[in-house]
Amino acid sequence: MKHPTPARSESIRAASTIRITKGRPLKHEDDFLAVEEPLEIKLSFGPAARRQTRSLAITMRTPGQDEALAMGFLFTEGLIGKAEDVLAMRHIGQALAPEAQDNILLVELAETAAIDFSSLSRHFYTSSSCGLCGKASIDMVRSVSCYFPRKGLPRAPAAVLHSLPQQLRQQQALFGETGGIHAAAAFTADGVLLGLCEDVGRHNALDKLIGKALAGGLVPLREQAVMLSGRLSFELVQKCVMAGVPILAAVGAPSSLAVELAEEYGMTLIGFLREGRFNIYCGAERIELD
Amino acid sequence: MKHPTPARSESIRAASTIRITKGRPLKHEDDFLAVEEPLEIKLSFGPAARRQTRSLAITMRTPGQDEALAMGFLFTEGLIGKAEDVLAMRHIGQALAPEAQDNILLVELAETAAIDFSSLSRHFYTSSSCGLCGKASIDMVRSVSCYFPRKGLPRAPAAVLHSLPQQLRQQQALFGETGGIHAAAAFTADGVLLGLCEDVGRHNALDKLIGKALAGGLVPLREQAVMLSGRLSFELVQKCVMAGVPILAAVGAPSSLAVELAEEYGMTLIGFLREGRFNIYCGAERIELD
Repeated sequence: MKHPTPARSESIRAASTIRITKGRPLKHEDDFLAVEEPLEIKLSFGPAARRQTRSLAITMRTPGQDEALAMGFLFTEGLIGKAEDVLAMRHIGQALAPEAQDNILLVELAETAAIDFSSLSRHFYTSSSCGLCGKASIDMVRSVSCYFPRKGLPRAPAAVLHSLPQQLRQQQALFGETGGIHAAAAFTADGVLLGLCEDVGRHNALDKLIGKALAGGLVPLREQAVMLSGRLSFELVQKCVMAGVPILAAVGAPSSLAVELAEEYGMTLIGFLREGRFNIYCGAERIELD
Repeated sequence: MKHPTPARSESIRAASTIRITKGRPLKHEDDFLAVEEPLEIKLSFGPAARRQTRSLAITMRTPGQDEALAMGFLFTEGLIGKAEDVLAMRHIGQALAPEAQDNILLVELAETAAIDFSSLSRHFYTSSSCGLCGKASIDMVRSVSCYFPRKGLPRAPAAVLHSLPQQLRQQQALFGETGGIHAAAAFTADGVLLGLCEDVGRHNALDKLIGKALAGGLVPLREQAVMLSGRLSFELVQKCVMAGVPILAAVGAPSSLAVELAEEYGMTLIGFLREGRFNIYCGAERIELD
């Protein structure tokens, strides 16, 4: 049986697999799967005299970097505005039940953190009186985001964009072993990789990336390009808007609402970035063509 | 400007795009994007004398087949057990606000429908005392599912599986025009396509497929194979377990928990189904090799 490298043992699991090629079993061998386990994020908040704890969300995620995931989720959903709003984070699953292991993370917020649960999109929508539509979804993001990208900056050469897919793939340690995990990476406008996070969920991979950047004092990411392994949905653009990302690129296609939100925010949105080509959906002024 | 065919005009939108190849703008042309808009599902339930309405969920989806999506979502989340639990469905957004258009769907449940809101996984997890882990997630599915696949049946030749990716792609009308939308399809064990649904969200595509099958009296899908365009997460396997699907195949890789749930249920799980090959993760006895 193959074994993953120790540092990745919580994110990868071996499984017995039968490989079939043209109707014939090629080999019966051990394969690696990306681990998927639930994570509950609990919040402790409020003044010392009236401290409250509540369950915020449960997400199916790949274990590893849970703190970055929680930090990014809280920030991109508009619940916290800065890294200092979080005092400490610790896994408390083990104390409740042995099976829960590392699957419950308690986030201790600062007494001064102004938590606005209504900013959670789910709650916003249901309490909104302005109707439920794409326009309302975009207005909701506008109401909670703090950063706007600078007009026309930074500028990135097309050749840099062409280099990103290969860099992403080369650095995707878990993808290399499992073939089935999403990635989110941040690059400079010169194409230097700053960080990469992986997860079975594409939202989680991006939250981990933004959470790490926030903890490292790098948000807003106003000089960076973010690249995603999958498709571009509204929620992924929303998360990048929250972090002030000026250039967002992906291997796959964007949805209609993803393009509308990016346009509204002056973000450069790029899709189908693969095999020496890409499509620019908006913000073309940031891309230097040959 | 290009125009989508009328029947698909709600699911596809034209957008101006700059196509770049090797650093050079190839052409500036109109492209089609898959539409993404929020849908709120509201439930009306309870005895006539004490009829209640509550908001159940908001999902970002591709408009079209909203009734199938709602029917499938209610069923695969364990809220209803049969099509007859739904009396009627109608869009009520227009009445509330013109912007909401067709984005709020009211589902009228039968007075006799036994609604168990605790079966919604989100609620189950947070009220569960058994700890939060993969095992608990699997137990949760067991507690609400009604169907088990038959042991070793149906049997599907490997050649049939090899034929599915091409059939899926050929029938994906929206993917053909946008290059960016997920699909879920049901096939007989002989490889005959029974139905296909598309959506920007992979969960929604599968809910639409199962919702259509439920409305048509075809659930449990115990003689069928389901094929998905993306990767196999726990929640996608869960939805197929609820519908009694014996064979589930996907273009992408499964997660660890997806394989564990499929094994537990005796489902055949196939990944990396593309280009004349596939991997069997469990339930190999249903596949006839050459």
